[in-house]
Amino acid sequence: MSGNTFGKIIKLTTFGESHGEAIGGILDGCPAGIEINFDAIRNEMQRRKPGQSAITTQRKEEDEVQFLSGIFDGKTTGTPIGFLIPNTNQKSQDYSHIKDVFRPSHADYVYEQKYGIRDYRGGGRSSARETASRVVAGAIAKQIIPTVKITAFVSSVGNIFIDKPYQELDFSKIETNLVRCPDEAIAMKMENYIKTIKKQGDTVGGTITCVIQNVPIGLGEPVFDKLHAALGKAMLSINAVKGFEYGSGFCGAKMKGSAHNDLYNEDGTTKTNFSGGIQGGISNGMDIYFRVAFKPVATLLQKQDFLTKNETITTIQGKGRHDACVVPRAVPIVEAMAALVIADYFLLNK
Amino acid sequence: MSGNTFGKIIKLTTFGESHGEAIGGILDGCPAGIEINFDAIRNEMQRRKPGQSAITTQRKEEDEVQFLSGIFDGKTTGTPIGFLIPNTNQKSQDYSHIKDVFRPSHADYVYEQKYGIRDYRGGGRSSARETASRVVAGAIAKQIIPTVKITAFVSSVGNIFIDKPYQELDFSKIETNLVRCPDEAIAMKMENYIKTIKKQGDTVGGTITCVIQNVPIGLGEPVFDKLHAALGKAMLSINAVKGFEYGSGFCGAKMKGSAHNDLYNEDGTTKTNFSGGIQGGISNGMDIYFRVAFKPVATLLQKQDFLTKNETITTIQGKGRHDACVVPRAVPIVEAMAALVIADYFLLNK
Amino acid sequence: MSGNTFGKIIKLTTFGESHGEAIGGILDGCPAGIEINFDAIRNEMQRRKPGQSAITTQRKEEDEVQFLSGIFDGKTTGTPIGFLIPNTNQKSQDYSHIKDVFRPSHADYVYEQKYGIRDYRGGGRSSARETASRVVAGAIAKQIIPTVKITAFVSSVGNIFIDKPYQELDFSKIETNLVRCPDEAIAMKMENYIKTIKKQGDTVGGTITCVIQNVPIGLGEPVFDKLHAALGKAMLSINAVKGFEYGSGFCGAKMKGSAHNDLYNEDGTTKTNFSGGIQGGISNGMDIYFRVAFKPVATLLQKQDFLTKNETITTIQGKGRHDACVVPRAVPIVEAMAALVIADYFLLNK
Amino acid sequence: MSGNTFGKIIKLTTFGESHGEAIGGILDGCPAGIEINFDAIRNEMQRRKPGQSAITTQRKEEDEVQFLSGIFDGKTTGTPIGFLIPNTNQKSQDYSHIKDVFRPSHADYVYEQKYGIRDYRGGGRSSARETASRVVAGAIAKQIIPTVKITAFVSSVGNIFIDKPYQELDFSKIETNLVRCPDEAIAMKMENYIKTIKKQGDTVGGTITCVIQNVPIGLGEPVFDKLHAALGKAMLSINAVKGFEYGSGFCGAKMKGSAHNDLYNEDGTTKTNFSGGIQGGISNGMDIYFRVAFKPVATLLQKQDFLTKNETITTIQGKGRHDACVVPRAVPIVEAMAALVIADYFLLNK
Repeated sequence: MSGNTFGKIIKLTTFGESHGEAIGGILDGCPAGIEINFDAIRNEMQRRKPGQSAITTQRKEEDEVQFLSGIFDGKTTGTPIGFLIPNTNQKSQDYSHIKDVFRPSHADYVYEQKYGIRDYRGGGRSSARETASRVVAGAIAKQIIPTVKITAFVSSVGNIFIDKPYQELDFSKIETNLVRCPDEAIAMKMENYIKTIKKQGDTVGGTITCVIQNVPIGLGEPVFDKLHAALGKAMLSINAVKGFEYGSGFCGAKMKGSAHNDLYNEDGTTKTNFSGGIQGGISNGMDIYFRVAFKPVATLLQKQDFLTKNETITTIQGKGRHDACVVPRAVPIVEAMAALVIADYFLLNK
Repeated sequence: MSGNTFGKIIKLTTFGESHGEAIGGILDGCPAGIEINFDAIRNEMQRRKPGQSAITTQRKEEDEVQFLSGIFDGKTTGTPIGFLIPNTNQKSQDYSHIKDVFRPSHADYVYEQKYGIRDYRGGGRSSARETASRVVAGAIAKQIIPTVKITAFVSSVGNIFIDKPYQELDFSKIETNLVRCPDEAIAMKMENYIKTIKKQGDTVGGTITCVIQNVPIGLGEPVFDKLHAALGKAMLSINAVKGFEYGSGFCGAKMKGSAHNDLYNEDGTTKTNFSGGIQGGISNGMDIYFRVAFKPVATLLQKQDFLTKNETITTIQGKGRHDACVVPRAVPIVEAMAALVIADYFLLNK
Repeated sequence: MSGNTFGKIIKLTTFGESHGEAIGGILDGCPAGIEINFDAIRNEMQRRKPGQSAITTQRKEEDEVQFLSGIFDGKTTGTPIGFLIPNTNQKSQDYSHIKDVFRPSHADYVYEQKYGIRDYRGGGRSSARETASRVVAGAIAKQIIPTVKITAFVSSVGNIFIDKPYQELDFSKIETNLVRCPDEAIAMKMENYIKTIKKQGDTVGGTITCVIQNVPIGLGEPVFDKLHAALGKAMLSINAVKGFEYGSGFCGAKMKGSAHNDLYNEDGTTKTNFSGGIQGGISNGMDIYFRVAFKPVATLLQKQDFLTKNETITTIQGKGRHDACVVPRAVPIVEAMAALVIADYFLLNK
Repeated sequence: MSGNTFGKIIKLTTFGESHGEAIGGILDGCPAGIEINFDAIRNEMQRRKPGQSAITTQRKEEDEVQFLSGIFDGKTTGTPIGFLIPNTNQKSQDYSHIKDVFRPSHADYVYEQKYGIRDYRGGGRSSARETASRVVAGAIAKQIIPTVKITAFVSSVGNIFIDKPYQELDFSKIETNLVRCPDEAIAMKMENYIKTIKKQGDTVGGTITCVIQNVPIGLGEPVFDKLHAALGKAMLSINAVKGFEYGSGFCGAKMKGSAHNDLYNEDGTTKTNFSGGIQGGISNGMDIYFRVAFKPVATLLQKQDFLTKNETITTIQGKGRHDACVVPRAVPIVEAMAALVIADYFLLNK
């Protein structure tokens, strides 16, 4: 009930604080007999890894995954896959200055209030380092549904955004730039903007769009477990996410029904796709697409007012290595959570 | 696993098709000894009820709730509360014309594909009639957390929207107009617009904003079951919802960290509330607020192309009694789902 | 979390007190397209019904099931099956004498301690009347797995027991006598013994044996959700059950491995079946069989000492209509719970 | 859904095969602020450890637990406790002879049938080595409910059994002998019997009795999640268990109600305790006691017939280091599972 488990048939349970011995997880419910592509897992980890480029944090994390069970002779056995990622780069001394203070717009204060105790080093459990375990699990989930294609990309950074529908974008360009934006001109603008923000010791938010293609018809449960509700919950569980919309989303709320309804072709496909590939909570075979909003990272390399345990306000100069904009590294996390949901609902639908 | 249950400690399971014998549910996990205010339940049902005003569907549903168990001498006993709402107004003949066709942007087609069978009368299980059971349960949930104040209202219809922060609105005006919008001038515009749309046989979408006040600090679980992820899933499970954002939401994705961070007062409250009352998934005692996007109702009183079971397209003139805009009646549904989440996490946090 | 739901894929949630308006339940997760045999359901209800014979309680309950949803044109639709059984025979006045007292070996006292309130009429929620809902659901579950044959029978009453292995019994005799014992000579002894006990105003315990045949290989999950653990929990959740053993059971604890091991035939079947059809928690295709112990009914038609709310002891003469021995009527309940488990694990294994 | 998770509020998820890299688990939902006694955990591990005495397997396992998260400055933080136990003593070569055969009364065959693949080394996931993770978690669970006293002991080995009620036994003697039987004379007989069996290359079953004292009134949920049903499922999930009874158990099925009913004292305690501390599924404050039956270990150091993958029978001489009787080492496992259930229901009842 403490919310460290995700999924129904395939269940991911994660553990670990950013500066403890290790983080990791157990992926339970993976079907037997799947030949695991370890390179694919490593590749996803590389995409999420800090220190990967000039616009991300320069903090180095090795993020070497160790698989401890559930895989035999390179194949899944149907038993739980235990894995861990050692925290090789823990520098606890970096965090002594925040032991007795609560950083603004971080979870420090609410953890202290809820639990009466917290691992204050680097955010502890509330650190986005936890998402490394999700990326491992998501990379396996993708291998359960190999025909489904999940593609996420950065669609906006601050006020810079892609102004084309995703159908007009070339997804092969996503990994060609540091921002993971398929429009190269806009990618360059975003990159420059992030560099500027970084120099100011500031941060900026952004959005990620995700497109899921080749989804079989029929995934999703009609009432409380609608497919988009599961996707929404998955995305909203990622650190820093503030919003989720799918298909026509918030724009759809402005439309008339006569414009919004997706008329059928004779083969059951639709001429438009304002529905976003999901009707009544169930996939209809059209592309599923959604957008996720990320707030700006709360850690600034500027002077800021902190609350102390003694209920006073103190000014502290931010330091360390942090992301000025989190969305480029969040792309594989969005894909991982999407893969976990789709694989889970795929198995559930059997 | 079929997704007809919602909640962790307090669990609502619903059943029922729009044109079957009855709909209803079981609310399990309600604490013992709560004196039930039946008028309050009836009042919520009235707010959701079809036929309540000139701008909603003229379809009449009595929506009389019968409680069958779990309440003794007016108090909850800690055992499951079974309840049902008879479908007194079933007119199955109304629906014979859609037996063999699939309406655009309805769930007819995916139900047929997923289950191979469906109750085609009035949408069956996919009908928003199911939400009546949620309103019953939500009205009870509100009585579990009497000090928490949950207020939802219509914040936009089509392109007409409230352009003030919720703090400047007078919530006592919400129930004074048909649209449930606290700004009376805008409410009037919305009402007129809905009437125009209705005359056209068309429909329009809208948004609902919900504010939750007096929430104790500490509700929410850190990783997958963040409080806003639970709220998001709850809202996305409501019929016709396309998006959810809380706190700064999608606007927050455009902001800089230096502007977005909520600085503390000495008592632990914050000077701003871009966070929307939740940090790292846990309530921080500030107001929780979020916005929900509803698409336009798919049923039009116009001619439209339908798909037939024989994979042909046929044109059908829409008829019957439907809402031109669903958001006025969805206000109590949003509140009900919010109440279920908050009451559940309140008990979970004990 | 209040424990009124059973199952993983097929979930039964029940509600209702013995003297409230109605009892009933929601069976969620039933596959679509199953043609429901209502006579079969009615037949199971008849077997459980009070007042069915000279050796059961003479209390009359109509036990007419009303199906409210989830079945359309006689077939399941994949949506939740809501059902209720009105409590037509409530005679609340019968129970006023126990309003302020706690009956020995009943749940009155612990309910009062746990909840601070209870529906004292006829045991309320703790009444075995709740099992009527299980029988409805179990009768449907049997129709999900039509090739599996589930047969329960009374194997002992007090010290009278069947001393043959089940393979030597003629199951067609079970319903030919009031006790539901396949050995007619022993059935007669049991019947006479129960009549004697009844005349004394006393009660007696007994055991039920259940045999499940034609179970596919592979049902059951290896670690915590072993098939026999699920069956055991199901049986132990039935009112008055004190013990569960499967295969060699408690006798197996006295045996040597060289005698207990089930040697294979070349086709994978085994020469003996001390394992009871389950290895490592997973069905192996052999017959599953288990035995369930029921304590004597706690309600006596004798004078007995009761505890009062004022913490004094008072002597009360038992009255009313109760079973002298519960096992004949518990046979369909054991089968129903077994059917729910097997159907659930069957779907889980897909 | 693959059954590697146990519990409702406190959830234990385990992973690991006997001859993989490591076994371990995640204990989620442990309250924050509990000062962990690591010696107590180590002590429980010693009691379960192979090679601990002349009557257990001489196989050596170091069983050194590494805690990876959830504990900070010696106290629980409310976040998941990840732990692992490296498999230092893997000798995979020992098991090559069983790669293509199925041992009688082992899970080899059903795993192969269910998953199409298995880690054949030492039983893989079906090995009782998995229970080491349960003992770690149980040792922590005991520290959540420090006032509850859980005592398990060996009550029979083969036909040798303790013939006194547990109230007449001196629990302080349990750890003074190799068998973990509190009656020293009977312990000696059991020890000698196990040694004889061992010399024969044979094995023998036994029973464990467990007594839980100082349980608060009110633990347990009325219907499907009765406290004894949860305890029963917990015990039946332990390797080699064939039966469970609590309170009067199978003997109770022979008794009359007039003898079986537990009459009250004025303080709410009862004069007898045939109920076994649980009424209607809810603890009543009296001692909870139950008995668990273990079959003889299936691995024999004798010649035995095995099934091959080619559907032939082959005779193989058993070799290696195995327990002739598993119950002495199963005592801490029974206690661990009992502790997990009681701690879970304790938190659930809050």
